[in-house]
Amino acid sequence: MELKNDCFLRALMRQPVDRTPVWIMRQAGRYLPEYLKTRAEAGSFMNLCQNPELACEVTLQPLRRFKLDAAIIFSDILTIPDAMGLKLYFVTGEGPKFEHPIRTAEAIRKLPSPDVNDSLRYVMDAISTTRREIGGQVPLIGFSGSPWTLATYMIEGGSSKTFPNAKKLLYQEPELAHELLGKLAGTVTDYLNAQIESGAQAVQIFDTWGGALSAGAYREFSLRYMAQIVAGLKRENEGRRVPVILFSKGCNTQLEALADSGCDALGVDWTITLKEARKRVGDRVALQGNLDPAILLAGKDVIRHEVEETLNSFGPGNGHVFNLGHGITPDVNPDHLSALISAVREFSPGFHS
Amino acid sequence: MELKNDCFLRALMRQPVDRTPVWIMRQAGRYLPEYLKTRAEAGSFMNLCQNPELACEVTLQPLRRFKLDAAIIFSDILTIPDAMGLKLYFVTGEGPKFEHPIRTAEAIRKLPSPDVNDSLRYVMDAISTTRREIGGQVPLIGFSGSPWTLATYMIEGGSSKTFPNAKKLLYQEPELAHELLGKLAGTVTDYLNAQIESGAQAVQIFDTWGGALSAGAYREFSLRYMAQIVAGLKRENEGRRVPVILFSKGCNTQLEALADSGCDALGVDWTITLKEARKRVGDRVALQGNLDPAILLAGKDVIRHEVEETLNSFGPGNGHVFNLGHGITPDVNPDHLSALISAVREFSPGFHS
Repeated sequence: MELKNDCFLRALMRQPVDRTPVWIMRQAGRYLPEYLKTRAEAGSFMNLCQNPELACEVTLQPLRRFKLDAAIIFSDILTIPDAMGLKLYFVTGEGPKFEHPIRTAEAIRKLPSPDVNDSLRYVMDAISTTRREIGGQVPLIGFSGSPWTLATYMIEGGSSKTFPNAKKLLYQEPELAHELLGKLAGTVTDYLNAQIESGAQAVQIFDTWGGALSAGAYREFSLRYMAQIVAGLKRENEGRRVPVILFSKGCNTQLEALADSGCDALGVDWTITLKEARKRVGDRVALQGNLDPAILLAGKDVIRHEVEETLNSFGPGNGHVFNLGHGITPDVNPDHLSALISAVREFSPGFHS
Repeated sequence: MELKNDCFLRALMRQPVDRTPVWIMRQAGRYLPEYLKTRAEAGSFMNLCQNPELACEVTLQPLRRFKLDAAIIFSDILTIPDAMGLKLYFVTGEGPKFEHPIRTAEAIRKLPSPDVNDSLRYVMDAISTTRREIGGQVPLIGFSGSPWTLATYMIEGGSSKTFPNAKKLLYQEPELAHELLGKLAGTVTDYLNAQIESGAQAVQIFDTWGGALSAGAYREFSLRYMAQIVAGLKRENEGRRVPVILFSKGCNTQLEALADSGCDALGVDWTITLKEARKRVGDRVALQGNLDPAILLAGKDVIRHEVEETLNSFGPGNGHVFNLGHGITPDVNPDHLSALISAVREFSPGFHS
């Protein structure tokens, strides 16, 4: 099936496009009534992830409403630790939890390296099902959590504000931390390669908690392993380059180092202007972002204005994928997202003449 | 009473010192058994804040244990909204809450501008009591939350991850937001001036949630009001300069703009190296920070090593106050803080020869 709209992939490779492509992190999510309906039918979040037909359905839902330039497979960043036996579950209002967090050297050493084509088969099936159903309309993105971000949940057993146990491991037992992160990097590499082989046309690594680390620890314990994954990825499939996006939230002081990791593009949060970010990374990578998701809570005029400001901040030229600086929140009115996408389509051609 | 140790004040003004001064954000806090005892005697956190003798006692407790170069008055960043009638209270495990959050234009317009020498008299009394008791041993720091940070709690009614209501106000009704922030800036200015007149020898503004804002919104809604406060402060008292420290957590991409605000020093969190931060601010301001508080959970050898790295990162020369990059956490063993302070005293003279 020929790809009808490749402007997202072209922008990631900093090739010319007619307008700035747009997709939205967590675009298949709780702000959509049709998502909530399918989610209720599935019974639980994990059932939804693990059922390829339902995962495909929710992946496609936002494409039916909005003129998006990419789809992202519906899944969770924590599928790998679940496949390693930690048993992921969700408590409403508290986020993800693991039944069996790992805290001891023994637990880390015993951690299995799962065969991703077996234990995470459901993700590959969701990707191939979705590729078939999407009919070449837009490219499909695959993704994973970063080793450090996975490790924080695995060690803390859930979300955390200060990551005391995970950080204690890094600082007190760095060799053991490296053993865990190395194991995770190997599995993430296998996982993303399997996603690419199943049909993912670009992949993104979410390093949600990179910003919790000091500058030095970030390079040693997070960036290093993301660079290792990038180096191990299959970068060509179906006769096309498969671009890799790294998104380390809260790590804007590390943009130069991230740009040297071998990836194609960087996700950028809203605490830095795209102008400044672009100045710092030069022409090494494309940039994806970076509207504050809270803008979608304001009125449509405000949204239009802020979209224009964001496009202006990046400025003319290639290498910008429009997105939020983090996931869309459940309290957003879907019509407001329509306004955002219309504004990107209206204003962005002027930056690509 | 003559000040016996002025190295903290000298470092804030980038004057020569024999060693790098050190104090710790939240040094009078739950990690200290003697604090927990006094806190229990007080009955509630607010009782402790509002009783000048008890507030003085907990302010002095860390000085009895550790060779600190400054004391910080025991209080809370949210005393101003409480004095405005929002009624502050604390729920264990959930942080601060307000009984009467403000959500409407009417509520914002009706918000009183309190006479700080009346409704916040207890803070001034705690400062003058502590100055008397401290006997010139080290300088005493006064503080306030920043207007933006106060506004987030006042609007959300407590802590928040994404600040939906506060941000909606900024984006949807910027004039109303400016009215609120302007009112808060006026009261913070009065409040800090009253603290200085009561004996605070340096003041710090905590902008805990500055990092939640986009680069543009940060300048318009947070930095602007902090600069306005700095311009309105009494900078000379008892024949000495009263230095002002701004600490915007998560705003390291804004260091240059912060350095131009008129303050004497910037608090720096651990997501940027002091070397990089110093390069960016040049000789405009001193820097305070920036060890990850989680380092104190590791062993003493690790702590010593990280202290040395932090001192190395700033490098030789004037203008460094050693601190953590955020408050010390309740799970820290006080002996580990001793190890940190000893290491600063042991290693830092080498940077001031």
